[in-house]
Amino acid sequence: MMVGSSSLAAAVRSQMPLATRIFDAIRERTADHVGITRPGELGLTVEWDLAGNLLCSLCGTDSDQPRILTGSHLDSVPTGGHYDGLAGVVAGISVLAAFREMDLRPACDITTIGLRGEESVWYGIAYIGSRLAVGTLPLEQLDELRRGDTGRSLAEHMSDVGVDVDELRRAKGPTINSNNTRAFFELHIEQGPVLVGEGVSVGIPTTIRGNVRFPYAHCLGVYGHSGALPRAYRNDAALAAVELVHTLDSFWIEQEAMGVPDTVFTVGKLFTDPTYHGMTKVPGRCDFTLNFGGTTKTFLDACRERTVITAGDIAQKRRVEFELGECVGSDPTPLDNQLRGVLADKAESAGIQIREFATVGHDASIFARAGIPSAMVLVRNDKGSHNPDEAMEMSDFADGSVVLAEGIVSLLGYDST
Amino acid sequence: MMVGSSSLAAAVRSQMPLATRIFDAIRERTADHVGITRPGELGLTVEWDLAGNLLCSLCGTDSDQPRILTGSHLDSVPTGGHYDGLAGVVAGISVLAAFREMDLRPACDITTIGLRGEESVWYGIAYIGSRLAVGTLPLEQLDELRRGDTGRSLAEHMSDVGVDVDELRRAKGPTINSNNTRAFFELHIEQGPVLVGEGVSVGIPTTIRGNVRFPYAHCLGVYGHSGALPRAYRNDAALAAVELVHTLDSFWIEQEAMGVPDTVFTVGKLFTDPTYHGMTKVPGRCDFTLNFGGTTKTFLDACRERTVITAGDIAQKRRVEFELGECVGSDPTPLDNQLRGVLADKAESAGIQIREFATVGHDASIFARAGIPSAMVLVRNDKGSHNPDEAMEMSDFADGSVVLAEGIVSLLGYDST
Repeated sequence: MMVGSSSLAAAVRSQMPLATRIFDAIRERTADHVGITRPGELGLTVEWDLAGNLLCSLCGTDSDQPRILTGSHLDSVPTGGHYDGLAGVVAGISVLAAFREMDLRPACDITTIGLRGEESVWYGIAYIGSRLAVGTLPLEQLDELRRGDTGRSLAEHMSDVGVDVDELRRAKGPTINSNNTRAFFELHIEQGPVLVGEGVSVGIPTTIRGNVRFPYAHCLGVYGHSGALPRAYRNDAALAAVELVHTLDSFWIEQEAMGVPDTVFTVGKLFTDPTYHGMTKVPGRCDFTLNFGGTTKTFLDACRERTVITAGDIAQKRRVEFELGECVGSDPTPLDNQLRGVLADKAESAGIQIREFATVGHDASIFARAGIPSAMVLVRNDKGSHNPDEAMEMSDFADGSVVLAEGIVSLLGYDST
Repeated sequence: MMVGSSSLAAAVRSQMPLATRIFDAIRERTADHVGITRPGELGLTVEWDLAGNLLCSLCGTDSDQPRILTGSHLDSVPTGGHYDGLAGVVAGISVLAAFREMDLRPACDITTIGLRGEESVWYGIAYIGSRLAVGTLPLEQLDELRRGDTGRSLAEHMSDVGVDVDELRRAKGPTINSNNTRAFFELHIEQGPVLVGEGVSVGIPTTIRGNVRFPYAHCLGVYGHSGALPRAYRNDAALAAVELVHTLDSFWIEQEAMGVPDTVFTVGKLFTDPTYHGMTKVPGRCDFTLNFGGTTKTFLDACRERTVITAGDIAQKRRVEFELGECVGSDPTPLDNQLRGVLADKAESAGIQIREFATVGHDASIFARAGIPSAMVLVRNDKGSHNPDEAMEMSDFADGSVVLAEGIVSLLGYDST
């Protein structure tokens, strides 16, 4: 069977009214499953896995073949935006609807997954749904993790929404693995301004950045009279913390100038102690967070090392003490080169301009780390994410959905021309 | 009449049990006038000026001659230390007691003043007592200034302690001026660690530092996702503020290295907004205070200028905005060269080692600015000031009192040998 690029694109674009109806229905009744009952009407199979993730499939002629998986997460942060996560689920359903309309009968199942619990704001950890699906969330966490606002356990909240937690506990092995799933594609809104800035509708991420974080760093000095202390007698925690932060900022700029791509550095919190600080007091304490992101372990290791060494030097020079605290982080997760290449090629054929750059943590990293070849499609979005002002144009969403559909069709071996 | 140095020193040192009794009595009954009734028994004249400042005098043979004034302030910060201010009043009384014991009969009055309201913590401004005495506090402030803890006016609180505020309002001209006062000597504990660090009991300040202060500066950027924003798209208020502070810190170090003496630079407050900040958010706002101190207007002007220019450069480079807010400050006040020289010489003759360095704001600056030749004697004190741990040794206090007495005696024209 041959699938023409123009007819595929047309079929996907013709699903945009459906996509809009789903977005609108979910917007109106966010807690309801409006978008979930509809796939049945589209001739798709709907089921839930043991973790409560929604699976919506176009069944293949040979369901024993490893399936192609697409989708993203259904949950949002509190008072978050409408498209963060949901866009990938609606895109998956729209693509399946287009395939149905084209009467595509693939050998393997093509499944759109609506994942649960991606946002870390609720239980303090991210990717709960995808990690349960691939078996990388230790099951004791079901009882240990507590939702910040209710104090109740993850297991209790999962029971509330109909998950049979006991069955989940008894499960032998993951429901999604590299044997039963040959690829995962995640469409997601871009959470930054790059695509808006460059005037391009679609991004193909190269890598999910890793990070090195010091969430509880602080510098300890000695409080003192701002006028009575000559420099030699000061133990100024703020100027020491400032020197460390500025040195690391300069290191970042320098690495970027040397050509290390896609790095970020953020000091999200920086504060003298409000109980004790004052304009005429030399600060005795300054707290701060350090958050480095990058696409190579080499860069992240260098950031960690540079932090520790610089803090040591400054502590000695300025007669203060740095307590950097726990260092947490994650390794970078490269996305699948072949799948990325397919997506980029197909976008080009379809006349859709793309940009390639690193992105932040997404469920795709969980599937990639579980050995499932994974790739992503980012859709241009204004005003960032995690806020109600997210602004994705449906025409950009259509472009992203076309690229997603082209990628899946290409993987199925249909000769898209 | 001749006054021998050794007999003067012995007479002053013999007053230390008296000084200790006064310190102890005031410590026990802080709100009481124990230290104030005693001077009568010592043959000294006690009166209060219109502003409620205590004046305790050894009357001269010709009271029309301009008097020599010594003393410091009686008030402290809340839960402050015992010696900040009080030491200068007790030293003055001890010196007068020694003069009485030596049967010194000077031509002019020698007066120890116990000033009110030096600490700014109560009414938001400092030096209320000395400024009322020399006539540089606008009288409308009596009603406008409100005490932070009670909300009541300065006038009301002054009435409570027996000041006839109406008489004060009707007063024609200052009670202390350069016609009726030929010199002011203030003994005060050192509020820093220099004398402790150098192992020296007495300091002779060269200048009362001026300062340039930005109490309400902040940088405004744009909050953003720490992972989704490449550097070129950031408007990071914290890293911009950090660059400004670090540049000014480097400027300070550079000025010091160039030989500009007695400068200080303090960023007492530095904070991202606790309501919005987070480890994974690029900060959209960072508040800070800048507080430069120095002994020359040239240095302070350079600090102000460097701040404004650097903030402008960084704002442009980093796509943020600096709102530096109100710039306040005071000019440096050099202390009287001749009096300083006398104190230094006399200390040397008495075998008391001294150090000369700039100091912070004291009542002496108010008298100096009113045209009254003024000098200070600092006494070694551990653990800083404005806290209950101030630690002044009575032997150091005796050294300081001897230097003070020598200075006064020298000014009286007694040939101290």
